[in-house]
Amino acid sequence: MTVSDQLYPASRLAAAAAAAARAGLGALLLTPGPDLRYVVGYDAHASERLTCLAVPASGDPFLVVPRLELPAAKASPAGRLNLEILSWDETDDPYALVASKLGNPAAVGLADRMWALMVLRFAAAQPGVRQALASIALSELRSVKSPAEVAALREAGQAIDRVHAMVPGWLLAGRTERHVAQDISDAIIAEGHATADFTIVASGPNGASPHHTASDRVLRAGDAVVVDIGGTMPSGYCSDCTRTYVIGEPPAEFAAYYQVLKAAQDAACERVRPGVSAESVDAAAREPITAAGYGDYFVHRTGHGIGLETHEDPYIVSGNAEPLRPGHAFSVEPGIYPGPHGARIEDIVVCTETGCERLNTVTRELVCVPA
Amino acid sequence: MTVSDQLYPASRLAAAAAAAARAGLGALLLTPGPDLRYVVGYDAHASERLTCLAVPASGDPFLVVPRLELPAAKASPAGRLNLEILSWDETDDPYALVASKLGNPAAVGLADRMWALMVLRFAAAQPGVRQALASIALSELRSVKSPAEVAALREAGQAIDRVHAMVPGWLLAGRTERHVAQDISDAIIAEGHATADFTIVASGPNGASPHHTASDRVLRAGDAVVVDIGGTMPSGYCSDCTRTYVIGEPPAEFAAYYQVLKAAQDAACERVRPGVSAESVDAAAREPITAAGYGDYFVHRTGHGIGLETHEDPYIVSGNAEPLRPGHAFSVEPGIYPGPHGARIEDIVVCTETGCERLNTVTRELVCVPA
Repeated sequence: MTVSDQLYPASRLAAAAAAAARAGLGALLLTPGPDLRYVVGYDAHASERLTCLAVPASGDPFLVVPRLELPAAKASPAGRLNLEILSWDETDDPYALVASKLGNPAAVGLADRMWALMVLRFAAAQPGVRQALASIALSELRSVKSPAEVAALREAGQAIDRVHAMVPGWLLAGRTERHVAQDISDAIIAEGHATADFTIVASGPNGASPHHTASDRVLRAGDAVVVDIGGTMPSGYCSDCTRTYVIGEPPAEFAAYYQVLKAAQDAACERVRPGVSAESVDAAAREPITAAGYGDYFVHRTGHGIGLETHEDPYIVSGNAEPLRPGHAFSVEPGIYPGPHGARIEDIVVCTETGCERLNTVTRELVCVPA
Repeated sequence: MTVSDQLYPASRLAAAAAAAARAGLGALLLTPGPDLRYVVGYDAHASERLTCLAVPASGDPFLVVPRLELPAAKASPAGRLNLEILSWDETDDPYALVASKLGNPAAVGLADRMWALMVLRFAAAQPGVRQALASIALSELRSVKSPAEVAALREAGQAIDRVHAMVPGWLLAGRTERHVAQDISDAIIAEGHATADFTIVASGPNGASPHHTASDRVLRAGDAVVVDIGGTMPSGYCSDCTRTYVIGEPPAEFAAYYQVLKAAQDAACERVRPGVSAESVDAAAREPITAAGYGDYFVHRTGHGIGLETHEDPYIVSGNAEPLRPGHAFSVEPGIYPGPHGARIEDIVVCTETGCERLNTVTRELVCVPA
C-alpha cells in the first residue's frame, strides 16, 4: 500500500455515499477543493470550467471533467478507482450532463467551497432540488483523522517546527518584516512543504493586529514579534504554528502577560480529551486570561480544525458544544493583544483516546533574540 | 495620484452600483476575490469568516469584516474610501448583519467566486431574495480595461516574456519537467510577480495533454516541450504566455504543424478589432488548422479574458457572439495535439481602437535548443 492509498483510501467513496444518505442528501456534488481531494485524492485545478464528482447516496459515482483535463484526471488517484469519468467539450453544458445523469434527488450537498458561479448554474439545471452543504455529510468524516492523516499532520508539524527553530536567526533589528517573511517562506518550502500559505510577521504595534501579515516596518530592539506561519505538504495536509519572539529586552508588561498566555495555552491543551466540548477548550484558554485582567484583549476564538484545509471543523469557539473525539485535530492558539504589542502561542494538537498530543513541539518558552 | 489610485480608482464603487441597477440587482455582495479587489482594491484573505462588501444599487455601500481583520481592512485601499466598515465578533452572525443593513432587495448579485458556504447562508438570511451572479453587472466593467489596467497587463506580459527568454537555457536533455518548472517558478518571482500561478512544462507525449502540469519525466533529445506559464503581479494583474520549444531536431511532422499553428495564431490576432465577435476570433484560429487537417486536434477554445483573474470574460469560444470592444484583453492560444507530442502558442492581446496590441513579444519562431 502506498502512502497515497493510506491517506486517500478507496473506501472513501462508499463512506461519503453513506454519509450523504445519513444526512438526507440524494447526492454530493464536489468541485475542486478539499472535499473532492478528501473523497478521491484528486487535487484538481479550480477553474471556471466545471470539474465535479457526483456521489449519489445510492448508485454509482461519476466524475465530470473538461476534455482537456481528462488525462490529468485519469493520472490522478481518482483514476485508480473504479469510477466513470465523463469529459465535456468547450461548447457542451456540463451542468445539464450532471443533472441528467443524477436524476432528480430531493437534495444535493455542494462542496463548501464551490464557487457561486457553479452553485447558481446547478440550481438552474436542477430546478426544485434543494441545495445544502456537503459538509453536513462530510464534516464528521473529515474532522476525525485516520492514523495516516495524523501522521501526515505530524510530518507537517515537524516541518514547520524546523522553520520556527530558524526564525530567531532572522529577527535582526534593522531588517523589515517583509524580509523576514521571505526567509520564512523559502524555508517553509525547503523544509518540505509544497506551498507556503501564510507568513505573518507582526512586530511591535503590528503584533496587536492578529491578522497583520508582513509590512515594510523595520524591526527594532524591544520589539515583540508574532510569527504565525504555515504551508501545505505534498500530502495535502497543512501546518500552522505561532510563536512570539522578543528582540532584546521585552517591553514593559509583555513578559508578564506572555506567562499568562503560556499558562492559558497549556490549560487549554490539558482540557483536551474525548467527550469534552470544543467550547470548553475555548473556555479553558479564556479563564486564566480573563482572571489576569486581559480578557478584553483575547479577541478571537481559541482554535480551528486543520487537515486538508488550514481552517475546518471542529472550531474551538464559544457556542460549539460538539464533543471532542479521538482523531479531532485543531489549533490551540490563545492571544493577548493589549497594544502597542501583542502575543499569541499556537500548537496543532490531536485529541487521542486519553488526552492530547501536541504536533508542534518547538519551545514555547519566551525566546529573546539578542538585539 | 498613486499607481493604486489609477488602477483602483475611487469611482469604481459608484460605477459598480450603477451597473447593479442596470442589471436589475438591488445590491452586490462581494466576498474576497477578484470582484471585491476590482471594486475597492482590497486584496482580502479568503476564509470561512465572512468578509463582504455590500454595494446597494442605491444607498451607501458598507464593508463587513471579522473583528480581527479590521486593521487590515482599514489599512487596505478600501480604507481610503468613504466607506462604512463594520466588524463582527466570533460569536456574531455576520449574515444577519448584512441582511438587516440591506433591507430586502428583490435580487442580489453574488461574487462569482463566493463559496457555497456563504451563498447558502445568505440565502437563509435573506429568504425570498433572488440570488444572481455579480458578473451580470460587473463583467462589462471588468472586461474593458482602463489604460492603467492595460499598462499593468503590459508590465505582467513583459515580466513573463523575460522568463520565456530564459527557458531555452533550462531545457536540457536529462533534466526532469519538474526541475525546469522549479527554475521557471523562481524566475517568475525574480522577474517581479508576487506569485507564480502555474508552470506547465509538458514534454514529448505529455505535450499532447493541454493541461498537463509538470512531472518527473526526463527531457530527451527530440522532445517538443509546451511551456505555459504565468503569475500575478503585485498590482493584482496576471500574466499568461505559452511557447513550444524543441530539444535538438523536431519530431517528424512537428515542424510542419508548428508552422500551421503559428499562422493560425497570427490569423486570430489579425482578426481582432472593435466590433468583431469573440467567436469569430476563435473561428479565425480554427480555419487554417482545420484546412491543414488538424482540426480534430485543436480541442479547446482559442482564448480567455485576463485581468485580475487569469481566466475571465470575454471568452474566445464558439457561441460567444459578444462584439469586441477597445480595452478587451484576452489570450489567443490555439493548439494542435496530434500526439505523441503537441504544440501551443499563446499571447495576451488587447483590442485597441483600430486592431490588436500583443502584450507578449518574445519570439514565436520555433526555438530549437541544442540537444
